[in-house]
Amino acid sequence: GMELAIEKARRTTVGFVAVRNSNHYGIAGYYSMMALKAGMIGISMTNAAPLVVPTFGRISVLGTNPISVAVPAAREGPFVLDMATSVVPRGSIEVYDRQGKRMPLGWAVDASGLATENPKAVLEALAKRLGGGILPLGGEGEEFSGHKGYGLALLVDILCGVLPGAAFGLDVYADEDSANVGHFFGAIDVRAFRPLREFKRDMDKLLRMLRESPKAAGHDRIYVHGEKSAAMEKERKAKGIPLGPKIVASLQKIGEDTGVPWPM
Amino acid sequence: GMELAIEKARRTTVGFVAVRNSNHYGIAGYYSMMALKAGMIGISMTNAAPLVVPTFGRISVLGTNPISVAVPAAREGPFVLDMATSVVPRGSIEVYDRQGKRMPLGWAVDASGLATENPKAVLEALAKRLGGGILPLGGEGEEFSGHKGYGLALLVDILCGVLPGAAFGLDVYADEDSANVGHFFGAIDVRAFRPLREFKRDMDKLLRMLRESPKAAGHDRIYVHGEKSAAMEKERKAKGIPLGPKIVASLQKIGEDTGVPWPM
Repeated sequence: GMELAIEKARRTTVGFVAVRNSNHYGIAGYYSMMALKAGMIGISMTNAAPLVVPTFGRISVLGTNPISVAVPAAREGPFVLDMATSVVPRGSIEVYDRQGKRMPLGWAVDASGLATENPKAVLEALAKRLGGGILPLGGEGEEFSGHKGYGLALLVDILCGVLPGAAFGLDVYADEDSANVGHFFGAIDVRAFRPLREFKRDMDKLLRMLRESPKAAGHDRIYVHGEKSAAMEKERKAKGIPLGPKIVASLQKIGEDTGVPWPM
Repeated sequence: GMELAIEKARRTTVGFVAVRNSNHYGIAGYYSMMALKAGMIGISMTNAAPLVVPTFGRISVLGTNPISVAVPAAREGPFVLDMATSVVPRGSIEVYDRQGKRMPLGWAVDASGLATENPKAVLEALAKRLGGGILPLGGEGEEFSGHKGYGLALLVDILCGVLPGAAFGLDVYADEDSANVGHFFGAIDVRAFRPLREFKRDMDKLLRMLRESPKAAGHDRIYVHGEKSAAMEKERKAKGIPLGPKIVASLQKIGEDTGVPWPM
């Protein structure tokens, strides 16, 4: 889908592709970043299984529906926004549950639809389909604009679910035979608006303006989006990817079963 | 700009227009909604004077940079997202200041870059250019994903500032002769993806699924975006627009000066 969007943008400046009958597509930013080499802005979104509760609701209707946009720069790394439209991913709640800790108030609601610090209450209510779920970006109610995160999640479901005719809302993953997840991919050729060199020069200027601006008390660094992941990728390519003991044991077992020795 | 985007979309399915050398453009949703009559999805964004502090920063570098997307439905009203990418607009902080109240912690930071409940401290620091400002959607730091709101504000500045060659970041309104605000408009013709009737039918289904889903304890209604404004518009068209005493006095004064009597 993303390759087709880029191909369309090569011919007509802008390309958009909506996908239906799909499944979990992995990392949103993987697709948006495909546009960077072509000197284009890349867009990638997907809907997902219901986990997020709409503002003033008590059951999860929308997915964590991520949005990713990648924009090329010159000497600076690219801007790569890759964000779930919920406050946190489900995994963050699971980490607090495993550690037996209370989580920040404003991440999730229990079966009554009210915010709770108890991660187990949220996960159990979700598992038993009693209600509850993760809050949209901005948190509970409207005081910190939770309705904006809810609006972004709904927008992603419109572009990924309704537009291609995929499943949306409660129907994503509801059919046993087909998850019918939907995606939305876009590519915009910067050269239709400005010479690419000028654009990239100004991208550098804006990203530096942010990184070099004065820091809050107790902080020594302002990041731009994609910077942390790029540093991590560089380190992992040099030093390898650390594997947890469970993964190692599982790989060794597969190796024994299939006659492939564990490399030392 | 929006008319041109719609015209381009009529010919080639998708139209995008970036504008430079502009000024305050009013209401973001006014432009996105122009696409509805044409059976299209409308997009409207603008950058704005620096008021928003990046995550871990202590001075405002980005504007409240709103995003609006309008999507047609059938019997349901259209979905109209129209959101500043900050937690709140500046006006909300001014209301708390006038009422002498403390504001919720997580709306804004003072000159040190740390969250404060004191609206006067924020407004004074901004006025004297000492630092401080409004927090991005998601609030202070990364605990509630303030970096996502910061990323959305930055994305808007890229599309509205960098892409058309307008001012961006600290440079918006910095030049006395030209604010050089930039905008980004888009129109996407739904019919390129699905028959419009099918699309609108499924929009109704999704919007109803949300409005009819179970409510949180203490709440009796779930809204979809644009619903509140549409109800307000209807009421105001029937009953008129209430004017505060200051506005009435100012209009009466202009009437006296120009010989136009106040209608009774």
